Amino acid sequence: MNQLYSSKLLENVVNEFSKLPGIGKKTALRMALHILKQDEEAARQFGQAVIQLRSEVKYCKQCHNLSDTELCEICASQRRDSSIICVVETIRDVMSIENTMQYNGVYHVLGGIISPMDGIGPADLTIESLEQKVAGGKVKEIILALSATMEGDTTNFYIYRRVKHLPVVVSTLARGLAIGDELEYADQVTLGRSIINRLPFENTIKN
Amino acid sequence: MNQLYSSKLLENVVNEFSKLPGIGKKTALRMALHILKQDEEAARQFGQAVIQLRSEVKYCKQCHNLSDTELCEICASQRRDSSIICVVETIRDVMSIENTMQYNGVYHVLGGIISPMDGIGPADLTIESLEQKVAGGKVKEIILALSATMEGDTTNFYIYRRVKHLPVVVSTLARGLAIGDELEYADQVTLGRSIINRLPFENTIKN
Repeated sequence: MNQLYSSKLLENVVNEFSKLPGIGKKTALRMALHILKQDEEAARQFGQAVIQLRSEVKYCKQCHNLSDTELCEICASQRRDSSIICVVETIRDVMSIENTMQYNGVYHVLGGIISPMDGIGPADLTIESLEQKVAGGKVKEIILALSATMEGDTTNFYIYRRVKHLPVVVSTLARGLAIGDELEYADQVTLGRSIINRLPFENTIKN
Repeated sequence: MNQLYSSKLLENVVNEFSKLPGIGKKTALRMALHILKQDEEAARQFGQAVIQLRSEVKYCKQCHNLSDTELCEICASQRRDSSIICVVETIRDVMSIENTMQYNGVYHVLGGIISPMDGIGPADLTIESLEQKVAGGKVKEIILALSATMEGDTTNFYIYRRVKHLPVVVSTLARGLAIGDELEYADQVTLGRSIINRLPFENTIKN
């Protein structure tokens, strides 16, 4: 049944909130009523933040990561090793890898993944600019850190073909059992790969 | 661990979203990235809707319901019986009762409930204006439709005392088993009340 709103303004906000991923009409209403309880300044701040994010956001001209400046903090940092580039799908993946605090190189955000089903081809991604960076000659290694899916593998392979004539090491994320996984429940392919790519035990003690 | 955002604008929006009820940082980030994927106009609409809701919203001068006009649609309607007033806590309750499509009177939104624990006394609610409406002499009945809690009961009793000298019928919502409830799992108080306030069987067939 359609909810009847006594106010068009309320209805607008409920509709806007319910466009967000995972938000239904009921939750959207709860959010809208929450906004109503705040003072006017808080609501203005909320609205302005959303508008500004979309209108003023920039993307780093080097790695295409979200940034407030021309060059993102990571690319601008002296402490990062710019000869290693980690290739990821989205800015969210940058955050995930940054959170591990195990990586000291720079990034390259593709802005998606090759997916014929969704109509996304190589030209829609920032692969051209990645190739140019590598062709510059200062890059020693690129790490392909895409999802372990069909699309990820396709994109990996496409990028590999584009850069294989260049003097650069192309590596990919280790596949294997996740930390905490029980052998019994691991899928065959993962288990198979983790046997093929088995590591010297000494390597694992170091981490 | 604190998430590191590469953009202050993004961080702002994530912070704003995570102030909403039931929204954590992870969901807030998902929402912010969703906004980024929209075009600029959509983000502007979203932000404007939130700002406008808080800055332009009005409350009906008669029933204190949320409204875009001086008098809300319900109060302004010729088809509603203005001699019956349903007293509710919030505008949300108005929606709930409207959704039942079983009520044809008007409303009075208290704007809260007497709750000494939260520092809310009778003066913080719109009880004064309710009393004046009733004293006007055109109201035949007020239906107290507050929550079946201690605070609800207190507020019910307070309102009752304020209007009992006036020629008005004061009724309250029926308490009893909810539709679909199994007797075995009903609590004692509810079950007890539903025995005391038992209905002639014929009444229930009509509904």
